[in-house]
Amino acid sequence: MLSLDKVFDAQKVLKSIIRETHAVRAHGIAPQCELHLKPENLQITGSFKVRGSAYKIAMLSEEEKAKGVIACSAGNHAQGVALAASKNGIKSLICLPDSAPISKVEATKGFGAEVCLVEGCYDDAYKKALELKDSEGYTFVHPFDDENVIAGQGTIALEVLHDLDSIDAIVVPVGGGGLLAGIAYTVKHICPSVEVYGVQVAGAPSMYNSIKDGKIECLDSVETIADGIAVKQPGENTFQLVKKYVDDIALVSDDEVASAILALIEKQKMIAEGAGAAAVAAAMFDKFPLQGKRVVSIVSGGNIDVTSLSRVIDRGLLNSGRSSSLLIELIDKPGQLKDISRIIADCGGNVTGVHYEKGNTERINGCYLRIEMETRDYQHVKLIMQSLRDGGFKIVQYNNERKNLK
Amino acid sequence: MLSLDKVFDAQKVLKSIIRETHAVRAHGIAPQCELHLKPENLQITGSFKVRGSAYKIAMLSEEEKAKGVIACSAGNHAQGVALAASKNGIKSLICLPDSAPISKVEATKGFGAEVCLVEGCYDDAYKKALELKDSEGYTFVHPFDDENVIAGQGTIALEVLHDLDSIDAIVVPVGGGGLLAGIAYTVKHICPSVEVYGVQVAGAPSMYNSIKDGKIECLDSVETIADGIAVKQPGENTFQLVKKYVDDIALVSDDEVASAILALIEKQKMIAEGAGAAAVAAAMFDKFPLQGKRVVSIVSGGNIDVTSLSRVIDRGLLNSGRSSSLLIELIDKPGQLKDISRIIADCGGNVTGVHYEKGNTERINGCYLRIEMETRDYQHVKLIMQSLRDGGFKIVQYNNERKNLK
Repeated sequence: MLSLDKVFDAQKVLKSIIRETHAVRAHGIAPQCELHLKPENLQITGSFKVRGSAYKIAMLSEEEKAKGVIACSAGNHAQGVALAASKNGIKSLICLPDSAPISKVEATKGFGAEVCLVEGCYDDAYKKALELKDSEGYTFVHPFDDENVIAGQGTIALEVLHDLDSIDAIVVPVGGGGLLAGIAYTVKHICPSVEVYGVQVAGAPSMYNSIKDGKIECLDSVETIADGIAVKQPGENTFQLVKKYVDDIALVSDDEVASAILALIEKQKMIAEGAGAAAVAAAMFDKFPLQGKRVVSIVSGGNIDVTSLSRVIDRGLLNSGRSSSLLIELIDKPGQLKDISRIIADCGGNVTGVHYEKGNTERINGCYLRIEMETRDYQHVKLIMQSLRDGGFKIVQYNNERKNLK
Repeated sequence: MLSLDKVFDAQKVLKSIIRETHAVRAHGIAPQCELHLKPENLQITGSFKVRGSAYKIAMLSEEEKAKGVIACSAGNHAQGVALAASKNGIKSLICLPDSAPISKVEATKGFGAEVCLVEGCYDDAYKKALELKDSEGYTFVHPFDDENVIAGQGTIALEVLHDLDSIDAIVVPVGGGGLLAGIAYTVKHICPSVEVYGVQVAGAPSMYNSIKDGKIECLDSVETIADGIAVKQPGENTFQLVKKYVDDIALVSDDEVASAILALIEKQKMIAEGAGAAAVAAAMFDKFPLQGKRVVSIVSGGNIDVTSLSRVIDRGLLNSGRSSSLLIELIDKPGQLKDISRIIADCGGNVTGVHYEKGNTERINGCYLRIEMETRDYQHVKLIMQSLRDGGFKIVQYNNERKNLK
């Protein structure tokens, strides 16, 4: 049974294993409230997950420890189990689908686990893990639906309540629900007046749907940049705890998550993964009644690969008018590029790409010119577009959308 | 006169103004040593600079405070002065060249300063600031060459020595030398056996040259992505202190700085600006005798604009083989794109861009196809290139360089 004693015990046990992460005030992200962040992206392994796994493993009997543990994950849970097992001096085996990125496999090995690559998808790897658990006597470490794992995640609440006086609300990202369940249970037993909110992404609303319908539901598929919370079905335990202790759950979009990632980079100088930015996105886009309150958003992890990060940043720059792409219809005659370059330069735009594109223009001797530029903001883009129009040029596309910015 | 008492006094004074930043262990960046980071990028205003300004301002007489302070900077110093003045309830005026990016102007205003935009370059703004200082009676807050500013920066050393037992070396980025002078003075008076190293970028080696030649030298121009340490001339005080207390200074290249920024993102989930990553680059690329030692690199700031960050990441992805661009010479006949796409897909590459380019190919019916892809690493790129060659295609360019990857 989950109990407050267990959470306090977990805190004691974890002391020598995890890193202390200190809540920080975040200015300028959610001006309607006093937003603080609990930066578990700065936690060892780059995610809070190590807390639950480490407490689970520490509580095993000597006999269980001697046999080792097994888990199935391509992400933060794998690294948490691997590190926690190493710190306890026991063996860990992580089953992964053979399609898992090499970087994840290497990271998991780097924390001391053996890796078993299983042909197929995640479900195949999961089946294989259960088989090996039975045949070899390993203990299976569930990523969320386990009371010791939940107690381990609950230690975050103890730290938040200790770091900050008189908070009004905690906002928590939700995948399977282990983090939310642990935090909600702990907070409501210590400071019942503090509101606890859960956040899912619109592309993976399993707990959201289940709570709304009053029973556990399973999604057919999930699709989101927040892969850390792309979970098809909540746990039995986590569902019951969330139902009992959580005030509300809301959804954020992938674009809102991307904006939150960018805001954390610019304002807080920190990298969050999609799941890690979800609770910040919820505060930023006003998904809960947080006006005037002292709020803590849990930044659950920072393990985003750089390719995805680059895409998020590029999207963010486009969305905020700091990079722009224009498609201009030209008559194919000399001097046009010169005129366009001059107009853009005079307006202070910085050209970063130029492509000629033949195409089905209105005039038979027409062609398209695609210009990519660094710009300051929307106002700046508008100024450049107006100057181009004043110079007699026809802009047929802005940022790959067939619409004109007026 | 600078004294240890002054540094301790600064620590007391700063307690209510600055954020505590906690040294963190950085794994996997500089394997030859035990690397720790002092993350002043997470400091309020995103840089250590607020320490020096805040102590300088706190030490002003009531009369001086009543008149207010003036500074000249487009960067971290401006924001530090602005915040420190606000916290002391006094007026601050920041002179900036009118070419300064709007974002910097807004950030400076956001911390409570008045901004005076001066036509021309930095030197013009500096002249204007000195004029206003004389005519209006403002106190000028120098960015580095002032004993109270240096004492404020020295408080970082007190925190590092308190956080970590028995360190062997501290590595510090150097622009004008205020940070290095403050840290070196403090460290050598408390733990003289700890080595103190300074790092400049190859594009702005003012302190490096001056120390080497034994006298202050002034550079004609500076050129680096680490704009925070692009300083043409060291200060009088800082030069003397660095000469007396610093063990060695080394240079890092802009590419090394970019690699360090990327490593901090991937391994530590934090954003550093160019100057902020310089001391990490020095450890990463083995510029000092750090083997087997416990080392602290100061991450001095995180104020990099997202456009620059995006470029650094893109460069990093290219350099590490995680994004690739191939130029393939084709005979202009149907089905070629299909074959190339199939080969790349079979190898697991992810195509992100395709451009046909007419050009001066060997064959008159030839053309060029530029393919941009996401790849896993160099090995993966080599595999794709070999498969394309086996399929009869001629690769004429890799990553915009006229060289073939064998």
